[in-house]
Amino acid sequence: MKYISILGSTGSIGTQTLDVVREHSDELKVCAITGNNNIELLKEQILEFSPELCCVMNEGKALLLKNMLSGNIKTEILSGMDGLIAAAEYDKSEIIVTAVSGMIGLKPTVAAIKKGKTIALANKETLVTGGSYIMDLAKLYHSAILPVDSEHSAIFQSLMSSSEKSINKIILTASGGPFRGKDTEYLKNVTIDDALKHPNWSMGKKITIDSATLMNKGLEVIEAKFLFDVKPEQIEVVVHPQSIIHSGVEFCDHSTIAQLGLPDMRVPIQFALFYPRREKNSYKSLSLSEIGKLTFEKPDVNVFKCLGLAFEALKAGGTMPTVLNASNEACVDLFLNKKISFLDIGNINEKIMLKHNPVKIDSIETILAAEVFVKKTLESIL
Amino acid sequence: MKYISILGSTGSIGTQTLDVVREHSDELKVCAITGNNNIELLKEQILEFSPELCCVMNEGKALLLKNMLSGNIKTEILSGMDGLIAAAEYDKSEIIVTAVSGMIGLKPTVAAIKKGKTIALANKETLVTGGSYIMDLAKLYHSAILPVDSEHSAIFQSLMSSSEKSINKIILTASGGPFRGKDTEYLKNVTIDDALKHPNWSMGKKITIDSATLMNKGLEVIEAKFLFDVKPEQIEVVVHPQSIIHSGVEFCDHSTIAQLGLPDMRVPIQFALFYPRREKNSYKSLSLSEIGKLTFEKPDVNVFKCLGLAFEALKAGGTMPTVLNASNEACVDLFLNKKISFLDIGNINEKIMLKHNPVKIDSIETILAAEVFVKKTLESIL
Repeated sequence: MKYISILGSTGSIGTQTLDVVREHSDELKVCAITGNNNIELLKEQILEFSPELCCVMNEGKALLLKNMLSGNIKTEILSGMDGLIAAAEYDKSEIIVTAVSGMIGLKPTVAAIKKGKTIALANKETLVTGGSYIMDLAKLYHSAILPVDSEHSAIFQSLMSSSEKSINKIILTASGGPFRGKDTEYLKNVTIDDALKHPNWSMGKKITIDSATLMNKGLEVIEAKFLFDVKPEQIEVVVHPQSIIHSGVEFCDHSTIAQLGLPDMRVPIQFALFYPRREKNSYKSLSLSEIGKLTFEKPDVNVFKCLGLAFEALKAGGTMPTVLNASNEACVDLFLNKKISFLDIGNINEKIMLKHNPVKIDSIETILAAEVFVKKTLESIL
Repeated sequence: MKYISILGSTGSIGTQTLDVVREHSDELKVCAITGNNNIELLKEQILEFSPELCCVMNEGKALLLKNMLSGNIKTEILSGMDGLIAAAEYDKSEIIVTAVSGMIGLKPTVAAIKKGKTIALANKETLVTGGSYIMDLAKLYHSAILPVDSEHSAIFQSLMSSSEKSINKIILTASGGPFRGKDTEYLKNVTIDDALKHPNWSMGKKITIDSATLMNKGLEVIEAKFLFDVKPEQIEVVVHPQSIIHSGVEFCDHSTIAQLGLPDMRVPIQFALFYPRREKNSYKSLSLSEIGKLTFEKPDVNVFKCLGLAFEALKAGGTMPTVLNASNEACVDLFLNKKISFLDIGNINEKIMLKHNPVKIDSIETILAAEVFVKKTLESIL
């Protein structure tokens, strides 16, 4: 039996992780779950999976949840960052699925790494903001970092087919989002609803907006750089609207290995939970002849500025990716609250990067300081 | 330094193997080469690669070659099957590239297996006619069989990305040949020249005709069954005209791993010669966005009868694939000599299969007896 903690069990990756647990209930057991506010869903999850611990970020909601549960339930209810860290450090848990969205995932992930846990990494911000600091920490504490993101899982699986890791380039595919092929003029007037219509994947709001700006792909470029220890120029982003080739690797012998499948996040989640074993499941089989056609094109970094910014942030190094990420997180929030336009997201990200002098990341404090820099600079800009 | 023998060094795979040796002359050394008749090319190869042994199948030509070489050349010239076997068993050679075409490859391959050599398998007939007998023999003598064929190399490489070999299905791609999308009516009148125009790969005549009938894909289905120990129903043939996805494997977790690349046989040849290591080379990089589009369709087994016959032969088992292969080899020869029509190839193959009662293969004699059966039956039919 493998014991797991799910940080962010009520979100898209969280609920799909529970789907995987449901499919393999004889081999996987959930010890701890966490959520922000959705205590109705947390209650259901507690009743179905009987975790030993549940953290609700919102303290008031945590109390409400306690009251909603009958006296028979033995699940301990915690709240706030302390509770989140308790779930991440939970003794029995071997694997921590970091499915929370945003920079809030950083501290509990670091806590889990320091306990030598295996990290099933679904929180983009961990590596985007922490970069080599996190990877070095993971090495130090013998904590394995297994990507859950479909693209990084695809790269990870592709890399397994080489005894050495002699990479020519990483081919990172992108659906292109809802605005693929559009120009800047068109993007001036897009609404929140337009941006939330992702063609292939059903995901949370933040990541869906990031898919529309291609910032999501930019963040994945940054993650890939650190996860697979490659140079930025070794990462090629290819727009592939059908999302069937999830990504791949061209090796030094010019043989490319790629991972393919129907868009179903349960496959990479399951892969991370059972790694290095492949386990049967009831999901759908890929039929290339049914799909008929796969297309590929270059992304337009002039229109989708955020993708270009990610490469620039990597080249600048240090805290620059941290700053881009924090700025973007704030901008998406502003966009979703109708405070700024869609194109403002990229423009403001760029402005803030221009004002930042990156420094080397040697602690979690450096990361948090960069976040503070972004908040202040953003206030001065708006 | 790795020492190799190339059986069939003047053919398409043979010359491309020498290209790979040329690219890696500091790591690969050719000890023995063989050819049928092309002594001009063999002379050139001897002068460039200084093999210790060269076999010319045609005895007269072997004598001519001896006379063509100056006294300074130390290469021993042999002829006939004995010479071919000597090249296959050559002491110093660690890897034997079996790039001869047809059933003539069987005996030298068995000889090399019995010496525990690594087989870089490019001769389709070895596994198509020998099947599990050959695989068992290879296990017994600890002889590794590494596929050179682009499709099987792709499957082999894809399988490396799983710690266990839990295969759902093998996805075997096919270019579809020059007559993709044509109907039986059209195929009635096609000429030898039409059939020799392969859209993607430059290969020998026999294999090019086999690509036009899809018999080549059928033979690959049979090879795949034995190489990867799967059931016929686990092999899915997908027509993919661009020949970029060279084949792949869907694992039990519904994750598909595939190998991609520009159509360049030197990549799988090099892979087999350096396995398990990947080695740098100067070949061209794959750009999916430049290629733009990959398409897939189901093969039409009603029109391309030979592909269906291959699956039927596998189901019948024993010597049935052997008989199909021998019949096809004879029919292609008849077609190339304008004795039968293009469609006759499939029709005669079917007729001969219907007359055969398959028996278990337990020796090379069983295989040769099946070949004799085909010759006799073919004579009675024509």
